[in-house]
Amino acid sequence: MSEAKGRVLLSMTSMHPKRWYDLLSADREVVLEPDGEADPNIDYAVVWKQPHGVLKKLPNLKAIFSLGAGVDHILTDPDLPDVPIVRVVADNLTQYMREYVAWRVLDHHRMGATYRSQQHERVWHEPPQPPAGEVNVGIMGLGELGRAAANALLALGFSVNGWSRTQKQVEGVATFHGEDGLTPFLARTDILVVLLPLTPATRGIVNYDLLNRLRKDGPLGGPALINAGRGQLQNEADILRALEDGVLKEASLDVFEAEPLDPQSPLWSHPRVFITPHAAASSDPAHLAPLMLEQMDAFERGEPLRNLVDREAGY
Amino acid sequence: MSEAKGRVLLSMTSMHPKRWYDLLSADREVVLEPDGEADPNIDYAVVWKQPHGVLKKLPNLKAIFSLGAGVDHILTDPDLPDVPIVRVVADNLTQYMREYVAWRVLDHHRMGATYRSQQHERVWHEPPQPPAGEVNVGIMGLGELGRAAANALLALGFSVNGWSRTQKQVEGVATFHGEDGLTPFLARTDILVVLLPLTPATRGIVNYDLLNRLRKDGPLGGPALINAGRGQLQNEADILRALEDGVLKEASLDVFEAEPLDPQSPLWSHPRVFITPHAAASSDPAHLAPLMLEQMDAFERGEPLRNLVDREAGY
Ligand SMILES: NC(=O)c1ccc[n+]([C@@H]2O[C@H](COP(=O)([O-])OP(=O)(O)OC[C@H]3O[C@@H](n4cnc5c(N)ncnc54)[C@H](OP(=O)(O)O)[C@@H]3O)[C@@H](O)[C@H]2O)c1
Ligand SMILES: NC(=O)c1ccc[n+]([C@@H]2O[C@H](COP(=O)([O-])OP(=O)(O)OC[C@H]3O[C@@H](n4cnc5c(N)ncnc54)[C@H](OP(=O)(O)O)[C@@H]3O)[C@@H](O)[C@H]2O)c1
Repeated sequence: MSEAKGRVLLSMTSMHPKRWYDLLSADREVVLEPDGEADPNIDYAVVWKQPHGVLKKLPNLKAIFSLGAGVDHILTDPDLPDVPIVRVVADNLTQYMREYVAWRVLDHHRMGATYRSQQHERVWHEPPQPPAGEVNVGIMGLGELGRAAANALLALGFSVNGWSRTQKQVEGVATFHGEDGLTPFLARTDILVVLLPLTPATRGIVNYDLLNRLRKDGPLGGPALINAGRGQLQNEADILRALEDGVLKEASLDVFEAEPLDPQSPLWSHPRVFITPHAAASSDPAHLAPLMLEQMDAFERGEPLRNLVDREAGY
Repeated sequence: MSEAKGRVLLSMTSMHPKRWYDLLSADREVVLEPDGEADPNIDYAVVWKQPHGVLKKLPNLKAIFSLGAGVDHILTDPDLPDVPIVRVVADNLTQYMREYVAWRVLDHHRMGATYRSQQHERVWHEPPQPPAGEVNVGIMGLGELGRAAANALLALGFSVNGWSRTQKQVEGVATFHGEDGLTPFLARTDILVVLLPLTPATRGIVNYDLLNRLRKDGPLGGPALINAGRGQLQNEADILRALEDGVLKEASLDVFEAEPLDPQSPLWSHPRVFITPHAAASSDPAHLAPLMLEQMDAFERGEPLRNLVDREAGY
């Protein structure tokens, strides 16, 4: 361990710090909380939902590293120091998300819930099955993860549409953007995949009105929703209402307005809802800690930081 | 409809002939059963599990067309005339099988059964999740469907092995063949996908002994079986025993020793078995009938028949 290397503060809630601590401290000095009032000897903060105010006590902080791809958990801190924020972009994380999206899209497309309920009743019956090419998957968010998901779905034969804030070109994908692009994007979508970041502009976007604009006469007997972005993008009461009145056929939810999901939530027992515990693409310290350490080394050699967050845009 | 076009016998059991009849008879004269003792005016037989003896009454038969990719249902006829047998090889069918295999592999890999049982108990818990590259999928049968499945799985990031009768090369796939190749193939397989034809050599091959040779210390906590080939490849009592004693973790079965699956079968209610009603890749008459008619036209122009069955090999 070189004395010249900048020191790291590791500050996380709702996750266990041990693996991260062990991996980061193999190469740099790591502290778990700053000493007393202020700590002038911290160069980098590696954080997941840091307690608010912790970072403003670090007068010599040079950069903040998010433990995940999303940074909403960082930006909500009202006393956030004005230093660069680095988020996770990593093959390992992207791979998990490709898998999750392909898995859930195929389960809705190939009628997993229907077959499971038929199995329960011991019914041998084959519902009409459109091939993937007749099914339109619409991806909200064409960033690192949305584009990787789009490519996995194209390789499986699906028709893919995408929606982003600014105009994007993705080979093989029909792209839409902004407020004006949203209605035509939704109108052709059978399976909606949400991979947006949580920002003031996207909070609560997955509401009844949005779900009600999805394609109604598609080949799957009703639209399906997959949210692997953030829970606060969705209104869960609206999702339940849409499931009840036929606006939505099925949903796969990996994220929730409040996590862990309340044991009282009616989502748990809904026969057409599939729940995973914010596990679509978990940050694996064994893969991500070395990438963070590399970035710190490069920064100390004078190279620029990569995967920086645009604070104005909020992601 | 040209008078010069050869006549077709359509003979099927356990399927409804109407769609096939309508589509084939738009271009050629089609009869549903041969007249009386013998019918010298039939050139082609289009069949699915034809009643035995029906085909021997057609003295001028030129070719038999299977309604599916498999031909075991034809070859069991002891009075089968010695004419070429054409089986289905079609993009539409192959696409369905790619989807089915990717769907079931992802569901085993991404712990679908575990999450469903946790959801039932309202448990928020993330089990360890290996990325696809650490999971070995082994495909038995590297024919049209096995190779297409392999390519879909490679695109999703899985490590893929294959096993066939004769030596095969498939880019990106570790291949094994014959009796000698079977043990090393099984020993590295976490998720076994069966896409073999049913022949005297493969009947009953998926038995307890075979399942017991799958990789035991893989990253998924035990091996999974997916059979989308034929039901008589498997011994269902052995599968249940393997599930009970921990040799097998989970299974997705699309085919069964007897179909429809007996309502009394304990497979229906097994929490780690997922059942579909021989629906992995159904023959869609709208896509396949035109291909058969094209083949008959080409044959009458003197061109060779394609996708012929090797009777000696049995597929
Ligand atoms: N469930 C999990 O396990 C898990 C794991 C990792 C990440 N995530 C979530 O996934 C999100 C996406 O990650 P990423 O790496 O793909 O992010 P990214 O590269 O920053 O991409 C974000 C995408 O969303 C679009 N977008 C942002 N605001 C928008 C708006 N107001 N209207 C329309 N489109 C908007 C962006 O549009 P532009 O292209 O125009 O900028 C961009 O295409 C993360 O923020 C995180 O919340 C979840
Ligand atoms: N569930 C469904 O909905 C559904 C739909 C369609 C088809 N199927 C089933 O899928 C099967 C495969 O279709 P396909 O079009 O891929 O067939 P295919 O092109 O004829 O390929 C068969 C493969 O199995 C291998 N094989 C045959 N006998 C073997 C043996 N004794 N030992 C090892 N390998 C052996 C062959 O080896 P070689 O390469 O050395 O010849 C070949 O790789 C069909 O026969 C049918 O039973 C099921």
